[in-house]
Amino acid sequence: MPSVLTPGDVAGVVTAVRATGPLVHCITNTVVTNVTANVLLAAGAAPAMVATPVEAGGFARVADGLLTNLGTVEGEQPDAMRVAAHAAVDAGTPWVLDPVAIGALPLRTALAAELLAVGPTIVRGNASEVAALAGGQGGRGVDSLDTPDGVRATALRLARESGAVVAVSGAVDLVTDGARVVRVRSGHPLLTRVTGVGCSLGALVAACAAVTDDRLLAATAATAWMCVAGELAAATAPTTGSFAVALLDRIDDVEPAVVGARAGLVAEPVGAAA
Amino acid sequence: MPSVLTPGDVAGVVTAVRATGPLVHCITNTVVTNVTANVLLAAGAAPAMVATPVEAGGFARVADGLLTNLGTVEGEQPDAMRVAAHAAVDAGTPWVLDPVAIGALPLRTALAAELLAVGPTIVRGNASEVAALAGGQGGRGVDSLDTPDGVRATALRLARESGAVVAVSGAVDLVTDGARVVRVRSGHPLLTRVTGVGCSLGALVAACAAVTDDRLLAATAATAWMCVAGELAAATAPTTGSFAVALLDRIDDVEPAVVGARAGLVAEPVGAAA
Amino acid sequence: MPSVLTPGDVAGVVTAVRATGPLVHCITNTVVTNVTANVLLAAGAAPAMVATPVEAGGFARVADGLLTNLGTVEGEQPDAMRVAAHAAVDAGTPWVLDPVAIGALPLRTALAAELLAVGPTIVRGNASEVAALAGGQGGRGVDSLDTPDGVRATALRLARESGAVVAVSGAVDLVTDGARVVRVRSGHPLLTRVTGVGCSLGALVAACAAVTDDRLLAATAATAWMCVAGELAAATAPTTGSFAVALLDRIDDVEPAVVGARAGLVAEPVGAAA
Repeated sequence: MPSVLTPGDVAGVVTAVRATGPLVHCITNTVVTNVTANVLLAAGAAPAMVATPVEAGGFARVADGLLTNLGTVEGEQPDAMRVAAHAAVDAGTPWVLDPVAIGALPLRTALAAELLAVGPTIVRGNASEVAALAGGQGGRGVDSLDTPDGVRATALRLARESGAVVAVSGAVDLVTDGARVVRVRSGHPLLTRVTGVGCSLGALVAACAAVTDDRLLAATAATAWMCVAGELAAATAPTTGSFAVALLDRIDDVEPAVVGARAGLVAEPVGAAA
Repeated sequence: MPSVLTPGDVAGVVTAVRATGPLVHCITNTVVTNVTANVLLAAGAAPAMVATPVEAGGFARVADGLLTNLGTVEGEQPDAMRVAAHAAVDAGTPWVLDPVAIGALPLRTALAAELLAVGPTIVRGNASEVAALAGGQGGRGVDSLDTPDGVRATALRLARESGAVVAVSGAVDLVTDGARVVRVRSGHPLLTRVTGVGCSLGALVAACAAVTDDRLLAATAATAWMCVAGELAAATAPTTGSFAVALLDRIDDVEPAVVGARAGLVAEPVGAAA
Repeated sequence: MPSVLTPGDVAGVVTAVRATGPLVHCITNTVVTNVTANVLLAAGAAPAMVATPVEAGGFARVADGLLTNLGTVEGEQPDAMRVAAHAAVDAGTPWVLDPVAIGALPLRTALAAELLAVGPTIVRGNASEVAALAGGQGGRGVDSLDTPDGVRATALRLARESGAVVAVSGAVDLVTDGARVVRVRSGHPLLTRVTGVGCSLGALVAACAAVTDDRLLAATAATAWMCVAGELAAATAPTTGSFAVALLDRIDDVEPAVVGARAGLVAEPVGAAA
C-alpha cells in the first residue's frame, strides 16, 4: 500500500525549496510572467523565463524544473514548449504542464494533447481543464465550470494513462498519482480574485518537484503552500489589491510547519467514493 | 430630448457588474495585461486575454465584452484584433477600442483607423488620441498634450460620424454619444502615475457595457468607478506603489452609491460652450 | 585628473528627473514591462514601450532616453532594438544596453555583441553579464555567479574599449567610465527578491542620462536612487510583496539629499587594488 503524506512531509518540501533555491524555467503566458516570477522569488526559488525555441531546449536541461503554461500560445511559444518539453524528459528535469483554458479554445487544446504525449511529470489545472485534457469539454476561459470532486474519476484515469501526477485546483484541491488521492482543504476565495495565482501555482509545483522525487508530495506541498499563504493573507487583507501583496508576504515568511499543519490534508483510498 | 444620467444609474451599473461577473475578452498591450486582469477581477468581472487570430474570433462571440487596445501592436495582435472586432460586431458583443498612442506612431494609427471603420461600440482614449483618431495630430507616447475640453467638438463629431460613444480621459473626463455630453469631475493626479490605469479603464468600460444597453451610461459608470476609487485610494496612499494597491482595494469594496454620489457628474446641452 | 562625484551631484540628478519628466523609450522583456513603467512613473519620468521595428526608430529619435533590455528576445524585438539603437546613436539619444542573461544563452549573447558594436551610452548588468559581454562566460539565467569586484578589471577594459560607461550591480555596485571608478555601497538583499529591479534600474539609468551629460554620474545616481529606496523600503517592509510596493513608494518620495547622503559613494583611483 502506498505511503500516506504527512504534514511533516509537506513542511520538509517548503524547507528544502528555501534551502536550495531551485532554478525554475517558465514558458508561461504574458499576463502572469511578473507575478509568477515574484511567487517563485517569494518562495526562495529562482525564476527564468526563456521562451525562444533556440534557447529553450538547452535551458530546460540545466534548469531544476520546467513549467509550460498554455495561457497565451502566441508566436514562437508553442515551438519553445515543444523543444523544452523534449529536453526536460531527456534530461530528467521535472516538468509541469498547465493546460490553461483548453477545451473552449482550439489552438491550445491541440497543443496540450501533443505535449501530454511527450510525458509531463505533473499536470496542473482546474477541473474543466483536466476534464478537457482527458478528452472532455472545457470551461469558459480560465474559469472552471466543474469541481475537483466532479472530475475525480477523470483525474485518476488521466494519471494512470499518462503517468503524470494530476493536480486539480478548486475550493478543495485534489492531487492524485493514480494510486493515491490527496485532498488539500485549505485555501480562500480571494485566491480566485487575483490574476495569476493558478498559473503561479504551476511554477511553485515545478520548484517543489525539484527538491523531492515524490511527485505527489511535490504537487501537494506546492498547493498547500499557496493555499495556506492565501488563508493567512486573507486574515489581514480582505480586498484584492492588498491581498495580492499579502499573499507574496506569506509565501515568503510562513513557517514550514504551519503549511503542513494548516494544509487540511486528507488522504483517501483510491476506491473510496468522492 | 435624451435622458440625463443620474448617480443612481451609475450605481446600478456597478451593482450589475458585481452581480453578473461579465466575461471580458481583452486583446491589450503586454505592459498592462496583468493590471488589467486585476482591475477586472477587483470589479467582479472575469478577464480573458485571448490574442491569437485563430482563437480570437470565436472567443469574441461568446464573451460579454471585448477590448482592443493598441498599446503594443506586435506579432499576430493586429490580426487577432481584426478577427475579434468583426466577430464582436457580428455577434453583438459590446466592443471598446482604445487607440493608445496613435498619431505619433504610424503602425497603430493606420490600424486604429481601420478598426474604427469596423464599428466599435465605444472609443476610449486621452484627448490627443481622440483627436488623432478623428484625423488630427497625436501626443507623445501615452501622454496627452491636449485636454478633454480642447477636443470637445472633435469628440462630438467623432461620435456622430462613427456611431460610437466617445470617452475622453483627463483631469475632467468627457463622455459623449453625439447627442449627450457628460463630464466626470472626480479623479486624482495619482491615477496618471501608475501604469495601465487608462488601459484598465478601457477594460472596465467593456465590463460595464456588458450590463447595460445605454453605452453612454456604461462609459460614464466605468469612468466614475475608476475615478472615485482613485480619490478614495489617494486619501490613504499618497505615493505611487501603495496607491496602485489601494486603487484595486477600492474598486473592490467601494459602495455603488458612493461611486454615483462622488462621480461629479455634469450633464450639459450639446450646444453649450465648453 | 577627472572630477569626483559628490552626494550633491547625485541629489541634483534626482531633482532634475522629477522636474523635467524625461520620456524613456523601453524595449524590454515581457516579464518586467509593468514594473519598469511603474518605476519610471514613481521617479517622475514617462515610460513608453515601443517595440516594433517600424515604430521604434522614429520613437528613439524623439525620446529623451532609450533602454534596450535583452531579457526576452522574441519575435520582432531584436529588429526593433537594432533600429532603435542606430536611431539613438544618430540622434544623440542616451542609450542604455542591459545584456540580461547573456553568456549562457546563445541568441541574446550574439545580439548583445552586435548591439555593443553600435555604441551604447551606458552598459548595465550584473557581474556575469558584464563578463560575458566582454568575452567571458555568463551565469545561470538572471543570477550572477560573479561579483562586481571580481570583474572590476574586465569592466574597466569594457568601458575603455567600447566607450560606454559600465555599471555592474551587486552587493556593492561598481560604475566606471574607464577613467573613474565609483562604488555605491547602499542597497539591500530584498532588492534581489523582487523581479524586475535590475531591469527597472536600467530604465532609471536612461532617465538619469537624459538630464546630465556626465554619464558616469547618470549611472551612479540611478543606482543610488534604487539602492537607497531599497534600504528605506526594507526598514518598513521585511517580506517580498510589501517590499515591492514600498520600493515604489520610496522611489517616489525619497528626498534627493537623502539619496546622495545614503548612497555610500566611494570614488577610487583606477589603478587601485579592488
